[in-house]
Amino acid sequence: MSKLNVALLGATGAVGQRYVTLLGTHPSFHLQVMMGSSSVGKVYSEAVRWMHPDAIPSSIASMKVMPATPESAKGCDVIFSAMPSEAAKDLEPKFAAAGYAVVSEASAHRMDDDVPLIVPEVNPDHLKLLHDQRKSRGWKGGLVTTPNCTVTGLAMVLKPLLKAFRLTKVVVTTMQAISGAGYPGVPSLDIVENVIPYIEGEEDKVVREATKILGTPSGGSILPCTIPMAVSCNRVPVVEGHLENLYCEFSTPLAPTDVVKALEAFRSEPQQLGLPSAPAVPIIVRSENDRPQPRLDRMAGSVPGMSVVVGRIRRGIDDKSLQLVLLSHNTIRGAAGSAILTAELMESRGLLG
Amino acid sequence: MSKLNVALLGATGAVGQRYVTLLGTHPSFHLQVMMGSSSVGKVYSEAVRWMHPDAIPSSIASMKVMPATPESAKGCDVIFSAMPSEAAKDLEPKFAAAGYAVVSEASAHRMDDDVPLIVPEVNPDHLKLLHDQRKSRGWKGGLVTTPNCTVTGLAMVLKPLLKAFRLTKVVVTTMQAISGAGYPGVPSLDIVENVIPYIEGEEDKVVREATKILGTPSGGSILPCTIPMAVSCNRVPVVEGHLENLYCEFSTPLAPTDVVKALEAFRSEPQQLGLPSAPAVPIIVRSENDRPQPRLDRMAGSVPGMSVVVGRIRRGIDDKSLQLVLLSHNTIRGAAGSAILTAELMESRGLLG
Amino acid sequence: MSKLNVALLGATGAVGQRYVTLLGTHPSFHLQVMMGSSSVGKVYSEAVRWMHPDAIPSSIASMKVMPATPESAKGCDVIFSAMPSEAAKDLEPKFAAAGYAVVSEASAHRMDDDVPLIVPEVNPDHLKLLHDQRKSRGWKGGLVTTPNCTVTGLAMVLKPLLKAFRLTKVVVTTMQAISGAGYPGVPSLDIVENVIPYIEGEEDKVVREATKILGTPSGGSILPCTIPMAVSCNRVPVVEGHLENLYCEFSTPLAPTDVVKALEAFRSEPQQLGLPSAPAVPIIVRSENDRPQPRLDRMAGSVPGMSVVVGRIRRGIDDKSLQLVLLSHNTIRGAAGSAILTAELMESRGLLG
Amino acid sequence: MSKLNVALLGATGAVGQRYVTLLGTHPSFHLQVMMGSSSVGKVYSEAVRWMHPDAIPSSIASMKVMPATPESAKGCDVIFSAMPSEAAKDLEPKFAAAGYAVVSEASAHRMDDDVPLIVPEVNPDHLKLLHDQRKSRGWKGGLVTTPNCTVTGLAMVLKPLLKAFRLTKVVVTTMQAISGAGYPGVPSLDIVENVIPYIEGEEDKVVREATKILGTPSGGSILPCTIPMAVSCNRVPVVEGHLENLYCEFSTPLAPTDVVKALEAFRSEPQQLGLPSAPAVPIIVRSENDRPQPRLDRMAGSVPGMSVVVGRIRRGIDDKSLQLVLLSHNTIRGAAGSAILTAELMESRGLLG
Repeated sequence: MSKLNVALLGATGAVGQRYVTLLGTHPSFHLQVMMGSSSVGKVYSEAVRWMHPDAIPSSIASMKVMPATPESAKGCDVIFSAMPSEAAKDLEPKFAAAGYAVVSEASAHRMDDDVPLIVPEVNPDHLKLLHDQRKSRGWKGGLVTTPNCTVTGLAMVLKPLLKAFRLTKVVVTTMQAISGAGYPGVPSLDIVENVIPYIEGEEDKVVREATKILGTPSGGSILPCTIPMAVSCNRVPVVEGHLENLYCEFSTPLAPTDVVKALEAFRSEPQQLGLPSAPAVPIIVRSENDRPQPRLDRMAGSVPGMSVVVGRIRRGIDDKSLQLVLLSHNTIRGAAGSAILTAELMESRGLLG
Repeated sequence: MSKLNVALLGATGAVGQRYVTLLGTHPSFHLQVMMGSSSVGKVYSEAVRWMHPDAIPSSIASMKVMPATPESAKGCDVIFSAMPSEAAKDLEPKFAAAGYAVVSEASAHRMDDDVPLIVPEVNPDHLKLLHDQRKSRGWKGGLVTTPNCTVTGLAMVLKPLLKAFRLTKVVVTTMQAISGAGYPGVPSLDIVENVIPYIEGEEDKVVREATKILGTPSGGSILPCTIPMAVSCNRVPVVEGHLENLYCEFSTPLAPTDVVKALEAFRSEPQQLGLPSAPAVPIIVRSENDRPQPRLDRMAGSVPGMSVVVGRIRRGIDDKSLQLVLLSHNTIRGAAGSAILTAELMESRGLLG
Repeated sequence: MSKLNVALLGATGAVGQRYVTLLGTHPSFHLQVMMGSSSVGKVYSEAVRWMHPDAIPSSIASMKVMPATPESAKGCDVIFSAMPSEAAKDLEPKFAAAGYAVVSEASAHRMDDDVPLIVPEVNPDHLKLLHDQRKSRGWKGGLVTTPNCTVTGLAMVLKPLLKAFRLTKVVVTTMQAISGAGYPGVPSLDIVENVIPYIEGEEDKVVREATKILGTPSGGSILPCTIPMAVSCNRVPVVEGHLENLYCEFSTPLAPTDVVKALEAFRSEPQQLGLPSAPAVPIIVRSENDRPQPRLDRMAGSVPGMSVVVGRIRRGIDDKSLQLVLLSHNTIRGAAGSAILTAELMESRGLLG
Repeated sequence: MSKLNVALLGATGAVGQRYVTLLGTHPSFHLQVMMGSSSVGKVYSEAVRWMHPDAIPSSIASMKVMPATPESAKGCDVIFSAMPSEAAKDLEPKFAAAGYAVVSEASAHRMDDDVPLIVPEVNPDHLKLLHDQRKSRGWKGGLVTTPNCTVTGLAMVLKPLLKAFRLTKVVVTTMQAISGAGYPGVPSLDIVENVIPYIEGEEDKVVREATKILGTPSGGSILPCTIPMAVSCNRVPVVEGHLENLYCEFSTPLAPTDVVKALEAFRSEPQQLGLPSAPAVPIIVRSENDRPQPRLDRMAGSVPGMSVVVGRIRRGIDDKSLQLVLLSHNTIRGAAGSAILTAELMESRGLLG
């Protein structure tokens, strides 16, 4: 089978680099075009401040960074956008209008009524919005977004809880890795031997995006899920892996052992289709008292960084409330990995190329 | 005025050292006797693995460590105990029986019916348990305890909330400093570039002790406060300062601005009495988005380390819920500092000497 | 005695803030004027991203930031410059020409022939360059500089070694704190759980500045000390305190115990004059195996942050070589503190006001 | 080809765990027996406090921990020892006497005259000591040791320098990872936001072991290399990867570019034999200013963790001195990985089985 050609918008940033590490060995996507802004004309290895332990794949290192225009992407079947939100706002619609399928990690269009906000295991059915989007916007291509890095793991854990139990309230406290802020991102003077109990705009995004992802398609848009959520976001001196402490309430009693079963049993379309970036077990449940931990568990599972790891599933205040801890890799499952898995899902549905 | 003589049980451990830094310059307590176990007979400066930036006060450095017996403490007016809980269990009652006032940081007797568990600004009235304690136990002295380091700051913030508003539920997520585990405590291999979402026994202690502290004296014991609490404890790579994210529910609507006022206005007996270790402002409210932070705020206030710093006071899910962040210095306000303030309070009430 | 009036250039940066913490309680300097660039017109507390645990002194918090011109500093006796080097290049001479005594932490003019580069305990006699400087430049005021933060502690330790022994070679390896890079400075993604074995331009600066400081005034300039030095600079995840490992060779044998004595006995003009920022003991020698350590020892001494702490004084390869470890506080002794002590020295010599 | 059977002494410790991660997929060694002390009788997964991101290989997880006696190892061709030095002292000779080939990471016998201390790329010829060892000790098996984790990378870099240039002096300053101290090892209270400029016994070990490894077999022992070395060891808050700053002197001038060539060209017997754990390039030279860095480079190369990464090769004080930075993975190249490579070398020479 010939590979699909892929273009990357915002190739030199932190998320852009993560795409490069993941696409370098991808079985069905071929990274053909790198697009950027300030580094146009440079060879990728010189344009980037490479931050990963593994080297830049040699085939990619020598690629030239092209200007961020639809013309640069000629011949590509899908555009991954790792642009800053500001730049993405105007640019992504141009690519979609020019006939490209755009899968974007930028926040600019996530909340647009007709733009699907996808976590492949959670709401693959939301891709049907693309139909309305093309009609109403007159685009030949389309724009699909993936959520904020803090939302993905949360939505994946809430989905089976919503399905199996009568969830009525969620209180989330996050401890987020510094890589979530990009590069240069968080100054070391702010975070070494410290915790910052605030991430700008993050708490609102978590509520807004999670309720859209868990919502129901209706007409050409999504009716958000109405479960009330309270969110507190903290930055901690961890390189990768967002940890979240959840307190949940339900309208009927539930046993923690049943929750374990529901989470462990969770499978979805990406697993059924055997998509290359789909982890065999989307939610790994640990039974030890002191897991998950970011440094030990962020790369767990059959596709490193793509599984959410859950632990400490226990009774809350009473038998109608529950507490648990979840961990998801913020630049893989929470960013580039989810976008790639989304594109794989779109390909399998004939929405690419 | 002549000073009261003070003895320290468990003088070489992490909390013991904090007592030494605080008592070295205390205006009305004179550290007269150091007691330990494995280091008996050694000079303090040689017995201790001193961990503080400031030097051991020279008058204390040369003191000899005595065996942990009532005889060693002869002539002392109060015994501060920083013993491990195991050792404290049998030992502290011996001192109390021998006529000493014991103020203990150990967890061994905190939940005993007739033992006051004191945060001086929160429940000074619980000291009245001492009366019953002496009678029922036949002690000439008495035993007073101070709570777990995570509880103190929480109780101080909940007290004015309980007083001013109809609090109905509390969800607490902590990010706790490594010094809370003592020395050697947390291995660096476990916590560098990591978060551990578990501290053994801690969550139960927080609920149990907080509800006792916020409870009501009745007969010779305390009727615990009945507000339901859910607690999740995490260890983070911070040296000192426990950060806590709170989500609270109330039975009637409340405005965050009113909460700010209630917390800022909070004063109690230690402030009214002008006790030496009482901070002028027990709860400092910060208005910035990103405060309190452990490294920046743990030593805030007129008595460094004794104020609780609160920030991000904001609406929760609706106008009957609230979120906030609090920080308290775990080895000062959460340990030695609170015990010393408790002794000052006891002295002012004539319960010492 | 009335205080001297002081102006601060570059008041909002990392070093500027350190000046504020030190001048807030200074016995003979009164911080009268704050000057900046982008924040002109704002009140200081709003212009600054304050990074210190202690609050901004209230008298300073409400000061308005003035434009960086000689007019703003009218009535001031000394100007402290914490400007970026680029800006300092043209600006500092303007202040000196206008009659002000400028004491600068910027690197722009440190190596100018007629500009003294001062560590007050090491080369107070270099201030005599000011005489020639005024003549040749036609300035009514003058410009004095203080060295790079890595140099100060090194020069202080080398001075007594040079005096007492025949030093012939120095190999220095540094482990430098992140605050040395200013704010935002080192991105956390670069330094958390990591060491960076490079600091741009630093190694050359250390050699150049140390040999000037240890040099001899001759004519209107300084003959540099000719001892060969090899320097390697590393950045480590420490907030404050530069640690340096020294290997030194001598032309004659020496005993480590004699080195201990020479370092401990070191006193200089600032101590003799009893200057307010002069530590009683400029070089504190620790006898423990594992000291100095940045977190424990950076604030040692009678004037916190102004003493250099030395340890592990031991034989090198043979009895003509020596190894030791030194620590100096990079933003106090290595920056603002040394500049203030330099101004105190100038005042005592009648070079101010 | 059938695999050789392997037994592991000290299977549950930090180094023991590293063996497990490396042997789990080894092409020619089959981990057949796990031996321990306190955990005898338990299944490995329950006996160990597993600290690695990757799971325990399932075939190993269910193995039972056997007592540390020659009988337990029956049928094994080689014994890897990751025992504490104390225990290794008596135990390893018992296994060697019983006919086993023992490859040990323990320090107990490293400096014994007739015991080879091997870095496979540096001194494979030292294995000939085994012949004398068997004769003089009357052993049927034999004992081979591998050096301290700080020595391995250093010896690998010094070897080609010694061969190509007239090296006369070495000054080494290390920044060592916490995993080098095992588990629980360094308390977090000692190392978070800190550097400890001391590691007990380490500096002597580095000199002693490096000069033995770089020495010449003569009679039944090794004449140590006589190049003088000065060593300073520091502990830094890094999880894995020892960084070392080298200053070297030579008797004749040399060009840094020639040093780059000599290091890059270095190959040895393990590469020629194509041993499974031999990295294609033993010494990787980076040309960037700011590399190697522990977090980015510790897993570099064709066999992750087995290459030494060198950077900042530059002139020292003059053209007869040199400075460089090297990094080696302390628990792979510096411990289990080197021991496994040593066993592979022994196998290829017919010294096993």
